[in-house]
Amino acid sequence: MNVELALAESKKVLSNKRQAHVERVTEEALHLAKLYNANEEHVGIAAALHDYAKEFEKTRLSKIIESSVHLPKDLLMFNDELLHGPAGAELIQRKFNIKDNNILNAIRYHTTGRAGMSLEEKIVFLADYIEPGRDFPAVYKSRELATQNLNEACRYTLQETIRFLMSKHQLIYPDTFHAYNELTKN
Amino acid sequence: MNVELALAESKKVLSNKRQAHVERVTEEALHLAKLYNANEEHVGIAAALHDYAKEFEKTRLSKIIESSVHLPKDLLMFNDELLHGPAGAELIQRKFNIKDNNILNAIRYHTTGRAGMSLEEKIVFLADYIEPGRDFPAVYKSRELATQNLNEACRYTLQETIRFLMSKHQLIYPDTFHAYNELTKN
Repeated sequence: MNVELALAESKKVLSNKRQAHVERVTEEALHLAKLYNANEEHVGIAAALHDYAKEFEKTRLSKIIESSVHLPKDLLMFNDELLHGPAGAELIQRKFNIKDNNILNAIRYHTTGRAGMSLEEKIVFLADYIEPGRDFPAVYKSRELATQNLNEACRYTLQETIRFLMSKHQLIYPDTFHAYNELTKN
Repeated sequence: MNVELALAESKKVLSNKRQAHVERVTEEALHLAKLYNANEEHVGIAAALHDYAKEFEKTRLSKIIESSVHLPKDLLMFNDELLHGPAGAELIQRKFNIKDNNILNAIRYHTTGRAGMSLEEKIVFLADYIEPGRDFPAVYKSRELATQNLNEACRYTLQETIRFLMSKHQLIYPDTFHAYNELTKN
């Protein structure tokens, strides 16, 4: 697998609009990978495949999570929006025989974040939030911070994600809280 | 122990200013207890003693938590502001031989909240936030909700507490997140 092949696989299962988002995330992520001396192969492949399962039926995603031996089942009790990351990582692992946990974790946690994110996980998480197609109030500060301080950019992005979800009376997945706390402590 | 005696004990260890706050919280809490058919004795005693340990030295509070067999030690890794509730409940249990867990939990969790709060715990938590001496933007909506829907008032108060702490770049204690999620789910 390489970035080009990963983008081609993503294109097979996504609408044109979402594939355009995936391509912008990949470009943004590779830019950040260079800036922060991250593993560009890991970042590029994970970014290219991060939304692989995004347009699959909820029942299919739920089944993947239910049948996984290591994914937490409480994912099914939170927002449906949380399913495609972990389920996508499972699918990709099986289908493309990707075994590198750093790539899989960057896909798995790209929506929620988690405490203990690797450099590459942080970059994919952030690139998904700030890619140039995004336009909402918090994105401007996240973009500015992204080139100055990766941890502070992630902390701010987690904070704004929590604020947004609360404003919609939505649940917050515990990994998101723990990621916020970890980056706030440091 | 009764409410009057509890207020007298609180007065012995608190500054006049804080004792005035405690008296307002107690009055507010008793008002809500009537409104929601809660146990007025539990609510009144817990409200009267909720800040019993608030003006004790941090080292004293930390030692109480360290030596407790059941209090979580991670309290010591978050904001100092979190110590007086759990440490106060320990002190009060020993000093006044109060054994009712509903009273002790209302004191223990009055700052953070927690998932699974009893009716009386919710009332003390909320009364502390909305007592008439409080004046900040979120308090007006909390006060309005308090007389309409206790759970929604607590949910909103937890949300605003999380927002406030994040705006100050402070850690959020996990019990607060879990309480928010539980009340948002229901």
